[in-house]
Amino acid sequence: MASSEGNKLWGGRFVGNADPILEKFNASISYDQRLWEVDIKGSKAYVKALQKAGLVTQNEMEQILTGLDKVFDEWSKGEFKIKPGDEDIHTANERRLKEFIGDPAGKLHTGRSRNDQVATDARLWLRDAITTLKELALQLISTMVERAAVEIEILCPGYTHMQRAQPIRWSHWILSHAAALSRDVERLEDIRKRVNVMPLGSGAIAGNPFNIDRELLRQAEFLFWGSMCLTHLSKMAEDLILYSTKEFSFITLTDAYSTGSSLMPQKKNADSLELIRSKAGRVFGREDKEAMFDTYDTVHAVLQVATGVISTLKVNQPAMEGALSPDMLATDLAYYLVRKGMPFREAHSCAGKAVYIAESKNIHLSKLTVEDLQTVSPLFDKDVSSVWDYTKSVEQYSAPGGTARSSVTAQIEHFRTWLQAQKQ
Amino acid sequence: MASSEGNKLWGGRFVGNADPILEKFNASISYDQRLWEVDIKGSKAYVKALQKAGLVTQNEMEQILTGLDKVFDEWSKGEFKIKPGDEDIHTANERRLKEFIGDPAGKLHTGRSRNDQVATDARLWLRDAITTLKELALQLISTMVERAAVEIEILCPGYTHMQRAQPIRWSHWILSHAAALSRDVERLEDIRKRVNVMPLGSGAIAGNPFNIDRELLRQAEFLFWGSMCLTHLSKMAEDLILYSTKEFSFITLTDAYSTGSSLMPQKKNADSLELIRSKAGRVFGREDKEAMFDTYDTVHAVLQVATGVISTLKVNQPAMEGALSPDMLATDLAYYLVRKGMPFREAHSCAGKAVYIAESKNIHLSKLTVEDLQTVSPLFDKDVSSVWDYTKSVEQYSAPGGTARSSVTAQIEHFRTWLQAQKQ
Amino acid sequence: MASSEGNKLWGGRFVGNADPILEKFNASISYDQRLWEVDIKGSKAYVKALQKAGLVTQNEMEQILTGLDKVFDEWSKGEFKIKPGDEDIHTANERRLKEFIGDPAGKLHTGRSRNDQVATDARLWLRDAITTLKELALQLISTMVERAAVEIEILCPGYTHMQRAQPIRWSHWILSHAAALSRDVERLEDIRKRVNVMPLGSGAIAGNPFNIDRELLRQAEFLFWGSMCLTHLSKMAEDLILYSTKEFSFITLTDAYSTGSSLMPQKKNADSLELIRSKAGRVFGREDKEAMFDTYDTVHAVLQVATGVISTLKVNQPAMEGALSPDMLATDLAYYLVRKGMPFREAHSCAGKAVYIAESKNIHLSKLTVEDLQTVSPLFDKDVSSVWDYTKSVEQYSAPGGTARSSVTAQIEHFRTWLQAQKQ
Amino acid sequence: MASSEGNKLWGGRFVGNADPILEKFNASISYDQRLWEVDIKGSKAYVKALQKAGLVTQNEMEQILTGLDKVFDEWSKGEFKIKPGDEDIHTANERRLKEFIGDPAGKLHTGRSRNDQVATDARLWLRDAITTLKELALQLISTMVERAAVEIEILCPGYTHMQRAQPIRWSHWILSHAAALSRDVERLEDIRKRVNVMPLGSGAIAGNPFNIDRELLRQAEFLFWGSMCLTHLSKMAEDLILYSTKEFSFITLTDAYSTGSSLMPQKKNADSLELIRSKAGRVFGREDKEAMFDTYDTVHAVLQVATGVISTLKVNQPAMEGALSPDMLATDLAYYLVRKGMPFREAHSCAGKAVYIAESKNIHLSKLTVEDLQTVSPLFDKDVSSVWDYTKSVEQYSAPGGTARSSVTAQIEHFRTWLQAQKQ
Repeated sequence: MASSEGNKLWGGRFVGNADPILEKFNASISYDQRLWEVDIKGSKAYVKALQKAGLVTQNEMEQILTGLDKVFDEWSKGEFKIKPGDEDIHTANERRLKEFIGDPAGKLHTGRSRNDQVATDARLWLRDAITTLKELALQLISTMVERAAVEIEILCPGYTHMQRAQPIRWSHWILSHAAALSRDVERLEDIRKRVNVMPLGSGAIAGNPFNIDRELLRQAEFLFWGSMCLTHLSKMAEDLILYSTKEFSFITLTDAYSTGSSLMPQKKNADSLELIRSKAGRVFGREDKEAMFDTYDTVHAVLQVATGVISTLKVNQPAMEGALSPDMLATDLAYYLVRKGMPFREAHSCAGKAVYIAESKNIHLSKLTVEDLQTVSPLFDKDVSSVWDYTKSVEQYSAPGGTARSSVTAQIEHFRTWLQAQKQ
Repeated sequence: MASSEGNKLWGGRFVGNADPILEKFNASISYDQRLWEVDIKGSKAYVKALQKAGLVTQNEMEQILTGLDKVFDEWSKGEFKIKPGDEDIHTANERRLKEFIGDPAGKLHTGRSRNDQVATDARLWLRDAITTLKELALQLISTMVERAAVEIEILCPGYTHMQRAQPIRWSHWILSHAAALSRDVERLEDIRKRVNVMPLGSGAIAGNPFNIDRELLRQAEFLFWGSMCLTHLSKMAEDLILYSTKEFSFITLTDAYSTGSSLMPQKKNADSLELIRSKAGRVFGREDKEAMFDTYDTVHAVLQVATGVISTLKVNQPAMEGALSPDMLATDLAYYLVRKGMPFREAHSCAGKAVYIAESKNIHLSKLTVEDLQTVSPLFDKDVSSVWDYTKSVEQYSAPGGTARSSVTAQIEHFRTWLQAQKQ
Repeated sequence: MASSEGNKLWGGRFVGNADPILEKFNASISYDQRLWEVDIKGSKAYVKALQKAGLVTQNEMEQILTGLDKVFDEWSKGEFKIKPGDEDIHTANERRLKEFIGDPAGKLHTGRSRNDQVATDARLWLRDAITTLKELALQLISTMVERAAVEIEILCPGYTHMQRAQPIRWSHWILSHAAALSRDVERLEDIRKRVNVMPLGSGAIAGNPFNIDRELLRQAEFLFWGSMCLTHLSKMAEDLILYSTKEFSFITLTDAYSTGSSLMPQKKNADSLELIRSKAGRVFGREDKEAMFDTYDTVHAVLQVATGVISTLKVNQPAMEGALSPDMLATDLAYYLVRKGMPFREAHSCAGKAVYIAESKNIHLSKLTVEDLQTVSPLFDKDVSSVWDYTKSVEQYSAPGGTARSSVTAQIEHFRTWLQAQKQ
Repeated sequence: MASSEGNKLWGGRFVGNADPILEKFNASISYDQRLWEVDIKGSKAYVKALQKAGLVTQNEMEQILTGLDKVFDEWSKGEFKIKPGDEDIHTANERRLKEFIGDPAGKLHTGRSRNDQVATDARLWLRDAITTLKELALQLISTMVERAAVEIEILCPGYTHMQRAQPIRWSHWILSHAAALSRDVERLEDIRKRVNVMPLGSGAIAGNPFNIDRELLRQAEFLFWGSMCLTHLSKMAEDLILYSTKEFSFITLTDAYSTGSSLMPQKKNADSLELIRSKAGRVFGREDKEAMFDTYDTVHAVLQVATGVISTLKVNQPAMEGALSPDMLATDLAYYLVRKGMPFREAHSCAGKAVYIAESKNIHLSKLTVEDLQTVSPLFDKDVSSVWDYTKSVEQYSAPGGTARSSVTAQIEHFRTWLQAQKQ
């Protein structure tokens, strides 16, 4: 048969013992070397288990432990040299160990497949990663909560569909995003719970072909988490980008979080926020180690940049409060009628008519006379003037989670207590 | 062995001859019935080929053709009744044909697998779909181009990173989006080209197991296209949503393209634009027939809604032009220095300093005195006043694609010619 | 200005009071009518809260409750008629309530926005959905566990990278997939926990613009979950599709879960498994209600079909065991040398050489003579024959999660206990 | 107002003039330095345009050109040193130019924004990338076509749904994948067409804020293309992985494209194919430069690895032909009846019954006696024995694209001509 006669019948490029393109493509050392520390830790634990099981002697174990410590030293001093054959961190560490202690190095891998090792290393690394990201998330939440506490008096428009809806406290906006992040922290704890469970079948000397799958799924869950957390931060950034436009002018970023234009001298772009926004939806769908590192690095940087932005942005209180307009109290106008006995749907319709009349006259809703309003409903009376007060309006919402001062203060206290509990 | 003895050893739910959940899950008739017309057309062509190949007689062919016409009639009158066993449109039409003409119906499927039939139907349908979507896209582009022609005098800020950049013509903004859509139309023609090529192997009486794959890939390409087109429309909608906020107030949607709030009487949301924006990124990654229909329906509706929005929105010229501010001419200020011999990078820096001085004094850049400017560079002189003219600024950009009147007019003419050519 | 003069300057199609395409595109009644029950339940709870807050009288509350019961009756009897203006289930129910009881219907919506209502309904619905999906997942796991218990004696190849790796128990394969699903059930409980928490700010009469966002995030989490669960089921299906090929012939699906070909009379396709496999990766990335329903329906059907497949498939024990070959014991051959004192890496290399010799001689690894083996290492002796025993091989892995009989039995017991606990 | 008093009220971490995390996060030099060559080429063209427009003198132009040549030299010798402030390749080259020639360097950027430069560089780079990828794709297709020519006599099962369908030529399988790739090459040419069009508005001295968007869309189209091409290669790899299992044993990869296991000495995994398969679906959805490079690198490597695999794999003809079984001729059995006058649907049903009888008797379909067959239909006669011939079966499909020798040969010729045309 033609095809069995040799490698070179069909004109493909030269192929030696191992295709160098494939080798390079396959090698993971460029990104998995960051596992060096957990790989050595894992091997140290493993050799102790081998000794207990009688598979290496006391002496061999000691040689291996000493050798691993030397490898550790090289890495921590930045002196470890990666060689061409080191396709991944596990191979690299094993190769170096053998150079240090010779044959006994070969015993370290009794009953342990590369997959087992990859899985264990990933698990150890993920545990540390979760701890770090949680700390960064808590720092961001803490910054948000304290900012909310200091600026509780500032009112601004609440938006839905990017249109002005009702007046709210600026702190309320901050806390709504802090709430999303606090749930992300809780989800991270759910994942840690599953990472900490010793996987079924990972006994000392077992060869479990399914082990690696379990680790992949755990990584997948971490990617999902990263994606969700980035989505939350992205939503916050989206609002802030809008607030930093000239047209809104609610906030100003410090120079440390802005960049200019190489063409237009006057430009000051909210680059930091654009970066945060752009990271959402980035890390879905791949279930490998590289994606895990990428997710970690991205969330790690984004949380810190977000903390920097939130802690240094300047709020333009006059602009925020200047954006409040009487038509945003149209719901309150409807409630006024409700309090006089009109069903809400009918009151909604009456308030809508009042808005229409004001627009036709090209005046603010609050400038309609009682007579104007009475053409819509005879229930309107002089006391309607009490409606046109933004502070009074926000103070109505004193239920848990509402935008009244007492309610926002309660949320701040809730977060402070929660943060305290998380840090323990 | 236990498992071979029967179906019911492990406590699963009852399973009859065919699992009804699977059947329902598997059936495509709920969405593929829209192929009824192309399915019948395809069958009519096929039976003629069978007759030529001597596989059915002249008489059988005529019976089948007559029967198919009856099925066609039922569908077009809305009288076709789908029965429980009709899992897809092909089965349904074949079943009904047999009810009309009996045994000869069975001959229609000589040498044709279900897959062949699915592939042919999809191809015919896709060809019609491309024609329709192209027409709708051209209608939208035409609306945009004519609007650009009428409103060529209106200036507005061009934005990058959502920050005011340089003055442009409003028509220029419109045409930049028309350009993206015009390339989508051209891509659609690329796809049509590949749809029209008679697939290799689809001879009259061939059974080609790879035929179906080819159709799937073609569908995948259509999905890619749909996704790209929706992304373009989404970007346009994103800008328009921003322009319709109270803070920008550049445009107002007619009531026909807005919705209110059930709670807040004053609200008028740009729902139509939000809908357009939200459809981007929706249809990726699935390669099946259902996705093809979904893509078609989505693009079909989005193009029409976009046409409606663009043709009816009101432009608030004073707000647009009021948003132009002298700092947007900082680049022109730098060019002023360039014309006096300064390298651009240095001029950029000088203009930046001027912006800073104006900000410090809390005045507009144009209000700086010549003396103020000379502290930055001695090249500034009285003639600097000529810089502060938005119309003059836009008129500088008269290269093809620029924002000068002549350039925008040339683009409009280009599009009109192109549209004319497309319609032929 | 040209554009303010009318709607029809630029040739767009006719636009009446509301664009019918937009209306149809916007309407959600076609899919959200399934919320009818939770919508009515939610409204009943809400009106009681309104009465307590003094916003409706005792009498009005009773009228509303009676009216809602009538609407409920119509839905449950399938007699509710959707009318053209009913854009969503909330509008539809409110419209019908007003027809029944007139004006007091309008009071039901005091202080409650459409968004609040959507959020509450989604929350109630999701709670029920979680309960149902959990039950179906437990049923599948239970079927798998009991099947694993009955067929514990059957051995088969464990595969990695689709290549034969080591002998395992068939039950071990089943349980590895049950384990993934059991973690999905636990994750579902994590989500339920968050769904059950009364959202911050959802007080009786609060208007919280962020409420809807919170619900969207919760839905997003449910979509993530669905996607992960479908990925697990997909992996299982992928293996089973392979096992059902003629070339493997490990399992046979019953006719209830297979389909034929319209062209090839002999074909029996594993359609049910292909369907399960194809659903993975389907439901990512959209955060709306339609996606939530789609996820639910898909997972709901897939879990049931999987249960049907698993409970009825026939295992071909001779084929499974016939696929075991001595080279799969090469790891055991290495361990033989390890037990005689050789480091694992060296033993691995010796076993590899033995495999090579057997391949060169075109005989099974177990057919090598002791002399053959001694050319590789002098440590080989007559007792090497004890290696060639598949059952003995699997019995080595008796650590938790291993493939030994005792270990698999322990896993079965663990799952039975866990299932019992879940059902409470 | 509290927030305007300073930067450090809320406990965020220290923030200096520019947040170093943001800077690092924002910098693109780590990946965009590969644009060094096109960046310099673009600048050389640009300065010539500036001189023509009278914006730099002849002398300045010459200084700039000489300086750029020096920068070019440094890069090509690997001596260019990236410095901390070099955030992207454009900044880096400009900085170095200034070090070489001083002030005139600043003139190079007259009327050119960073965005313009990014867009131009990306366009030039993409043009080269398209040329390279096209060549690699043609090399792969050529390898496939020549392999198909040499091995045209080998038959194997054609599979649908991973179940044996009908006998085909192995070459037919190869060519079906070559066809998909050839369409990818054509699509690449469609993209090149659009890359080569001088973008509207990119006149010599224009500042077009929309330019960058156009480039992003072009990149997006390239990402789509990459994704589609990888999907095609993935499908081919998927089949080959299956064919390389022990159970199929149709092909064997050379060692150069296989890897072993660190635990199991006998393992030989089709790593190269798994890698190819895994890359599909990787590169969607991000529209930035990093994604463009990633797509290019991935497709670049995958095409080469695929060429290596295809040119060196060994075909196991006996295994392929041994997998042909008489039930795969059941369609031919039906056609036998069709030729005797029976409608296809009825013939399909009769052949199905024959398959069932053979399965019940546990014999091959071809071993049924004429008497057995006559219980199904009296049309069966002794000449039915002529059906059981695989070669005769494939020779029936002589329509274009069919699996007959003549048809496959025609396809090979078609591809050879097409390849020739592409290379010109």
